[in-house]
Amino acid sequence: MADQYVQNPAGTEPPPLPALRWDEPPEGPVLVLLDQTRLPADEVELVCTDVPALVLAIQTLAVRGAPLLGIAGAYGVALAAVRGYDVEESAELLERARPTAVNLGYGVRRAVAAYRMAVDKGADAEQAAQAALSTAKALHQEDAEASGRMAEHGLVLLDELLPGGGHRILTHCNTGALVSGGEGTAFAVALRAHRAGRLRRLWVDETRPLLQGARLTAYEAARTGMPYTLLTDNAAGSLFAAGEVDAVLIGADRIAADGAVANKVGSYPLAVLAKYHHVPFIVVAPTTTIDRSTPDGASIEVEQRPGQEVTEVTAPQIAVAGGVGGGLSVAPLGTQAYNPAFDVTPPDLVTAIVTEQGTLSPVTGGGIAELWARSRQVTIS
Amino acid sequence: MADQYVQNPAGTEPPPLPALRWDEPPEGPVLVLLDQTRLPADEVELVCTDVPALVLAIQTLAVRGAPLLGIAGAYGVALAAVRGYDVEESAELLERARPTAVNLGYGVRRAVAAYRMAVDKGADAEQAAQAALSTAKALHQEDAEASGRMAEHGLVLLDELLPGGGHRILTHCNTGALVSGGEGTAFAVALRAHRAGRLRRLWVDETRPLLQGARLTAYEAARTGMPYTLLTDNAAGSLFAAGEVDAVLIGADRIAADGAVANKVGSYPLAVLAKYHHVPFIVVAPTTTIDRSTPDGASIEVEQRPGQEVTEVTAPQIAVAGGVGGGLSVAPLGTQAYNPAFDVTPPDLVTAIVTEQGTLSPVTGGGIAELWARSRQVTIS
Repeated sequence: MADQYVQNPAGTEPPPLPALRWDEPPEGPVLVLLDQTRLPADEVELVCTDVPALVLAIQTLAVRGAPLLGIAGAYGVALAAVRGYDVEESAELLERARPTAVNLGYGVRRAVAAYRMAVDKGADAEQAAQAALSTAKALHQEDAEASGRMAEHGLVLLDELLPGGGHRILTHCNTGALVSGGEGTAFAVALRAHRAGRLRRLWVDETRPLLQGARLTAYEAARTGMPYTLLTDNAAGSLFAAGEVDAVLIGADRIAADGAVANKVGSYPLAVLAKYHHVPFIVVAPTTTIDRSTPDGASIEVEQRPGQEVTEVTAPQIAVAGGVGGGLSVAPLGTQAYNPAFDVTPPDLVTAIVTEQGTLSPVTGGGIAELWARSRQVTIS
Repeated sequence: MADQYVQNPAGTEPPPLPALRWDEPPEGPVLVLLDQTRLPADEVELVCTDVPALVLAIQTLAVRGAPLLGIAGAYGVALAAVRGYDVEESAELLERARPTAVNLGYGVRRAVAAYRMAVDKGADAEQAAQAALSTAKALHQEDAEASGRMAEHGLVLLDELLPGGGHRILTHCNTGALVSGGEGTAFAVALRAHRAGRLRRLWVDETRPLLQGARLTAYEAARTGMPYTLLTDNAAGSLFAAGEVDAVLIGADRIAADGAVANKVGSYPLAVLAKYHHVPFIVVAPTTTIDRSTPDGASIEVEQRPGQEVTEVTAPQIAVAGGVGGGLSVAPLGTQAYNPAFDVTPPDLVTAIVTEQGTLSPVTGGGIAELWARSRQVTIS
């Protein structure tokens, strides 16, 4: 139950509740997922013993969030290998589970490559499976470390921009431990500020239509004892006007070569409000979010989601497969809805991009290229 | 059922479904209300035979919207008088039903004044009751006429600002026949444009937290055969960025003496987006919305609504008394929510204010004073 966490004062955080963990009970290895469709009403774990179970969990959004999907994909390959299933076939199933999730494919391919390399070197099936598992664990660890570095760089930036301390941060969607091997991206920066005693308030946009802010970010904020307040997305304007927002911190789904940022719908209006009120608008994302093959914001194709997400309301208690449909209808039958999954913020509205490789401000194409090159250097070295 | 209306092509509107009507069946006079808490799922009428029933309907939001509450208040006084109840006591009950609704008190006082004047002139109880009823009917008629004039002035303005025609209008909250004795304020302008063949698209903000856009504006748009599309409030930014919005049309709850506009929360961020994208931001409201005793936007006290409206989701099927609470919880228990009922847009972000007395642009304190004086002149003459 989530209510008990609301009362946690700072410094008395409950033990971490991982979004995903590898376990090896006597019955055999399993991948255990926190079922995000049930949050915050229930903390229920899903135990995957094979790849089809994991594929279903991905498709129903029980596990979600770009970095976390990459980790899940790698563990999925390891699970198939360890349990003696066809690795290539399992990898294909996983990659197809959410074709637009770039990180999922990345994680899958990285684990498969490790498996194949071991086989090529003469390893037996068990040794090759262990190679895939080691790669999944490494990816998991790398992502956790990237989170930590983003949090560190982000807090330095906040303290520079807002020397007075007592930060009041507005955030959108969910960017915490539920989308990451570590503590997340934008949320991790706010959490670091909280632990350092420098967070006055986390303003949590509910994030329509799927309410990731109300359901997941509020859950993570309550769990870690942060001072947080939930609001409808359209109430953020009043907060800006009242001078109650010191900075906006959001994540990113994709960063184009010119520094344009695609993120959850509702990010762009926040960027415009932030500009109008002279409030820093900060994007926190690992360098793996940079997509050098997309030259600019206009080139980013915006995914249109089903209209039912808008015409129907759902709650965790009535969540259904895929998170779409099956809710309670609020609009007239037959109502057409415009439901883009994300929007694009041009680089001139972004004060800074914080990555595990450091902070870029102002945001320029040259700076993006440099960050990307630096991340490649680290990977190669 | 609402679905049948979605298929209406332009020009084949169903017969009007009044939000409120006075009826005199053999059993005695009644005030009949369309129950707005049940829309769009069901079109159900509430029949009020006495003032306590009407007070309950007002408090549960079965009848809502500033101008409509004024009309309802006046009819309530007439109902009490016609049916032989204590008129003064009934008036007091009605005025207290929603103490912040300025128009409710105005309608009640106007009907009571007519009743008293008749009594003072020696009328018997029945004659005095008829005087109150005549006043209620006059107020109803005046409001309908004001709607018509606002629609006319509004369309002239749109055609001036957007000579190309094919208007794509974004609106927020509900400002149609459900809040008015006529066809409403901002919505009435869009409807007039539709009937003139000059509305390409009505973009309907869902308007969290109570979803008046999804529930009521979409219902009215579907009913009148308008081309409309529903969106989450935070998706409006993408529409502006894509150049898909030609003008924003909204209503007003209160207009301060300097031209600052208090309206449903979410209006101000639209004004900032409109400014940033050079799109006209137009407020449509009768001159009775001008509050000369409030000097400026900063003097407007913003009503804070219960947090449950944000932490719980409701649908017409699960609507409860007052429209608050009793929904499905989406946030962790104990979550605190910031839930202002409206926000304030400064006059420099408002392109024009359209009233029944004409259009004011640019919006200045002097212009507001002139509009108000003109409306007084008309009333006095």
